[in-house]
Amino acid sequence: MIDTLIEKIIAKKAPVVVGLDPMLAYVPEHIKEKAFAEYGVTAEGAAEAIWQFNKQIVDAVYDLIPAVKPQIAMYEQFGLPGVEAFVKTVNYCKEKDLVVIGDIKRGDIGSTSAAYAIGHLGHAPLAGEAFAPGFREDFATVNPYLGSDGVLPFVKVCKEENKGIFVLVKTSNPSSGEFQDRIVDGGRPLYEIVGEMVDKWGAEYIGRHGYSAVGAVVGATYPEMGAVLRKIMKRAYILVPGYGAQGGTAADLAPYFNEDGLGAIVNSSRGIIAAYKADKYKEFGPENFALASRKATEDMIADIAAHVDIAK
Amino acid sequence: MIDTLIEKIIAKKAPVVVGLDPMLAYVPEHIKEKAFAEYGVTAEGAAEAIWQFNKQIVDAVYDLIPAVKPQIAMYEQFGLPGVEAFVKTVNYCKEKDLVVIGDIKRGDIGSTSAAYAIGHLGHAPLAGEAFAPGFREDFATVNPYLGSDGVLPFVKVCKEENKGIFVLVKTSNPSSGEFQDRIVDGGRPLYEIVGEMVDKWGAEYIGRHGYSAVGAVVGATYPEMGAVLRKIMKRAYILVPGYGAQGGTAADLAPYFNEDGLGAIVNSSRGIIAAYKADKYKEFGPENFALASRKATEDMIADIAAHVDIAK
Repeated sequence: MIDTLIEKIIAKKAPVVVGLDPMLAYVPEHIKEKAFAEYGVTAEGAAEAIWQFNKQIVDAVYDLIPAVKPQIAMYEQFGLPGVEAFVKTVNYCKEKDLVVIGDIKRGDIGSTSAAYAIGHLGHAPLAGEAFAPGFREDFATVNPYLGSDGVLPFVKVCKEENKGIFVLVKTSNPSSGEFQDRIVDGGRPLYEIVGEMVDKWGAEYIGRHGYSAVGAVVGATYPEMGAVLRKIMKRAYILVPGYGAQGGTAADLAPYFNEDGLGAIVNSSRGIIAAYKADKYKEFGPENFALASRKATEDMIADIAAHVDIAK
Repeated sequence: MIDTLIEKIIAKKAPVVVGLDPMLAYVPEHIKEKAFAEYGVTAEGAAEAIWQFNKQIVDAVYDLIPAVKPQIAMYEQFGLPGVEAFVKTVNYCKEKDLVVIGDIKRGDIGSTSAAYAIGHLGHAPLAGEAFAPGFREDFATVNPYLGSDGVLPFVKVCKEENKGIFVLVKTSNPSSGEFQDRIVDGGRPLYEIVGEMVDKWGAEYIGRHGYSAVGAVVGATYPEMGAVLRKIMKRAYILVPGYGAQGGTAADLAPYFNEDGLGAIVNSSRGIIAAYKADKYKEFGPENFALASRKATEDMIADIAAHVDIAK
């Protein structure tokens, strides 16, 4: 799957992933009103609103990008109907031939991590030869705090199912340093140690472009750390959040890429899906929110291309 | 909610939580056969099987215990029907007046962590004064790797909704030390630093028994570390996994309790819900699996009472 992702990035000349994190506040009134009229002012109505919102954005941008990254928290907040909207979104994006990165940040131990891996990337054994697919993402984000016991069950499912993961190494948020930046035994920050483990966990699962099924999350807001991590995890694809709304700029992104012009994919969520609310794109108006998202995606791709030698 | 949990622990003389982690392999054949006959050998069938399994166990043990801890991974593995079984399980346990600890190990940043907190412990705003409840657990487990940005949105919802969290500090698994035990700047292991933050995050949310809405997860398999953490986080309730199947014994549990006989609640999952598969309880047989679970729960409560001065 890492090969598929890379080939789509090259084909579309866009190391860009659109984060489908549909806060209800981003959804234009006309969509919410229709959904609430049909399903009531309920979780079902909210779930319908975010699904319709997603669908129009995906329709507007799918030809420009290799991948989407739905953030499952934004769906879980509406309970079961929200999770159903997540399922619809994943399935629709796969119909549109997009790689789907489930931003689920799961992590547990042993059979429990295996259950998460199966549920999001694999198939659950039922009886005899029967298996049930779960949520059908192509990649998942994984939290490493529990160590190898938590990550290796995901790696096993990645191998069996040709899927991939991105392990949280250095996150984009202001307080990420509270634990991740602590200087540990060897005189280096914890995130470097996690980065070394990412390199190790992924060492046996290298695809035909030289990249591993085990990637990493490193925030755009910490480019110096990104440069160090790039060297530690040479074969890891880096998923880079924090571009745009969180303050990361395209000029900050160069360190995340390798000399082959590959090795990183940059996420934008709010900057794309709520583009119509930004001054820069407000002329589109709420009715044309999806066109604003398309223009913001084109602008992001051009911005990155102007600052980074992406693979041609 | 921490007060409610403590009062139930005292009333039932049982600092015990039953982990509802229904692996399909634990479910007796007669339940699986009936569910698959009704719903097909599908995710829906599996979800029905684990729900019926849970229901019978809850019916058999609810009067003995203060709380249950459903592990959401075991439900997510079956996709949307699995999550529906999780919802049914949570609601049923609440009908039985049990405190429900959602073992969800979520953690993200800012508005995303807030969405998880709302989805599991709170209510999502819809329009005007309308809110939708999410999954309705009373407590959730939270992963701290992203720092305060990840945890404080949960704490805020806990305050608003009278709920609680247990933050992963030192987990019970063999590889938990890979990152958690690293010696950081101050010459102390990372888990102690996380423990200090737990104490700080919870300092303003102390209930009438002197315990905070912000608790901690510390595995039974590391009692020396438990003793140190008990001192660092005096007001944190400690959720202790790892008893029984993972190797922790009742003799190991004393350090997790305070002198008031409170301060810890011990989880057992497999040891209770799959008791009928253990040599010790095999005379019950698969048909009476729930009675085996009841006996195993009684034995666990007695075992802990024999080794720990629990609050009378």
